[in-house]
Amino acid sequence: MRVLSGIQPSGTLHIGNYLGMMRQMIELQAQNELFCFLADLHAMTSLNRGADLRAKTLQAALDFLALGIDPDKAVFWVQSTVPEINELAWYLSNITPVGLLERCHSYKDKLAKGLPANAGLFNYPLLMAADILAVQSDIVPVGQDQKQHLEVTRDIAIKFNNEFGETFQVPDALIKEGVAIVPGTDGQKMSKSYGNTIEIFGEEKVLRKQVMNIVTDSTPLEQPKNPATCNVFKIYALLATAEQKLALAQKYRAGGYGYGEAKKETFALLWEYFRPYRERRAELSQNLDAVQKILQKGTDKARAEIAKTLQAVREKTGAFL
Amino acid sequence: MRVLSGIQPSGTLHIGNYLGMMRQMIELQAQNELFCFLADLHAMTSLNRGADLRAKTLQAALDFLALGIDPDKAVFWVQSTVPEINELAWYLSNITPVGLLERCHSYKDKLAKGLPANAGLFNYPLLMAADILAVQSDIVPVGQDQKQHLEVTRDIAIKFNNEFGETFQVPDALIKEGVAIVPGTDGQKMSKSYGNTIEIFGEEKVLRKQVMNIVTDSTPLEQPKNPATCNVFKIYALLATAEQKLALAQKYRAGGYGYGEAKKETFALLWEYFRPYRERRAELSQNLDAVQKILQKGTDKARAEIAKTLQAVREKTGAFL
Repeated sequence: MRVLSGIQPSGTLHIGNYLGMMRQMIELQAQNELFCFLADLHAMTSLNRGADLRAKTLQAALDFLALGIDPDKAVFWVQSTVPEINELAWYLSNITPVGLLERCHSYKDKLAKGLPANAGLFNYPLLMAADILAVQSDIVPVGQDQKQHLEVTRDIAIKFNNEFGETFQVPDALIKEGVAIVPGTDGQKMSKSYGNTIEIFGEEKVLRKQVMNIVTDSTPLEQPKNPATCNVFKIYALLATAEQKLALAQKYRAGGYGYGEAKKETFALLWEYFRPYRERRAELSQNLDAVQKILQKGTDKARAEIAKTLQAVREKTGAFL
Repeated sequence: MRVLSGIQPSGTLHIGNYLGMMRQMIELQAQNELFCFLADLHAMTSLNRGADLRAKTLQAALDFLALGIDPDKAVFWVQSTVPEINELAWYLSNITPVGLLERCHSYKDKLAKGLPANAGLFNYPLLMAADILAVQSDIVPVGQDQKQHLEVTRDIAIKFNNEFGETFQVPDALIKEGVAIVPGTDGQKMSKSYGNTIEIFGEEKVLRKQVMNIVTDSTPLEQPKNPATCNVFKIYALLATAEQKLALAQKYRAGGYGYGEAKKETFALLWEYFRPYRERRAELSQNLDAVQKILQKGTDKARAEIAKTLQAVREKTGAFL
């Protein structure tokens, strides 16, 4: 199946990003034709801009490549380097009712908060439809927050096909279920906006500090402890083998084992787990020319696919050929 | 000065189009750097589509070239052949409040009529802003109906310049005043939607019939007639020399001169007036390869200008370079 996945470059990556979404997504490249792009044009709708955005995009490219995106298996590119999708969005816009965009929650939520929305945010689902339809995706993995936008994409594809004849593959959502909810250092869902993250590629002392700051209860050292309710244990469990989990749970229940020790073990596990990725990333960041070449190759492949779709759309909509 | 003018390909050209707007516009090429494009992407917002739209665009290209657009003086191209403006529209959209587009009358009028509007119509002023700002126009000739859209373009340019530093020339409107209001064959303003047009490049018998159908009053042949209130005279006067006008007015006032005769003279004048243009157009339509080459040259020139602007915008907004 052809699978499309777009991710906004968000800055510093944390284990919540990786375990919650990226790992599953990268694994899709083994069995599918994976198209994966860094959605920098979408990021602009939330005031990302300038050199800062460009730097984030490059960091995200390094993250993905380090964590296993294989440019020989997947088509991997930066959205803004294939601006043809903006052209496709225009053609789609002429069969897309304004009301369909007005009902999208990304826009409605902003309006409900009394915040002034820009046209970019309003048109975001239209650009997302262009992303998806341009490469004729069969499957789009989406979280709950993007389900509605995928419905909009399907509506647009079906309407276009009805009015102009079969042109677009109508994509299906792959709703990500059973994905680990990764708790942050305070027990809430891990999220940059909560300031409760543990980074993947940060410096050792930063990561150590983040782990040492995990919030625990005040059970004295000598008393038995409940792993099921402990944030340290939950985070440890995300990366540990079954044996490691059992061993740590026994120490918790036995008593005489403090949270400080558990945090040290968690940090050690984390540091080892990401060691190969960290080394790969360090290599890549020493060799940015090679990274640019990888991205250029992705751009070329994506562009070739999109050109086929766009040619058919231009023909049908009446663009001058 | 750099002047930009975009015209939707509207199908069959009539003398109202030419005398009301085109002639003045073409004359701008003598003293200015004229950028003139056929706005086929805009035409798509009003359900123009497919091969029919493409044919209209080609006919409009032949019309403009026949009527005097000089591809050595003006940059003349078809909008959809430089899709980079769609990309620019996206960058602009992220600093454009939704409210600004909601207030545009093209959208509001449709809404007021209870008609469902598509996103293309809603975003039309954004694409128009991209057209204008992409080539750094100083001046944009606009009719009353486009004044508001030019204000939107100015707002967007000023806001972008404020947020990202000087990037765009803020264009001024050249409001077309003192332009002849061309009456149709029924005395209303000449317009295809009223079915009261006199074509420029139609077949002789069609044009003759259109002229013979001009509505007159029922003053008997032998009585004197008032040229000032006669539709035939008004149309004659648009193309006649001062001497010809005087001569015809005398015949009207003298009596014994019928409207039928006046119509014949009007047709003869019209047929002669457009003869050189008609011959030029016939030549061009026998040589569509040459026309395509002319348009391609315009596309190349427009693209080179737009590329400069877009490069600066990509740099500032944070697109990946």
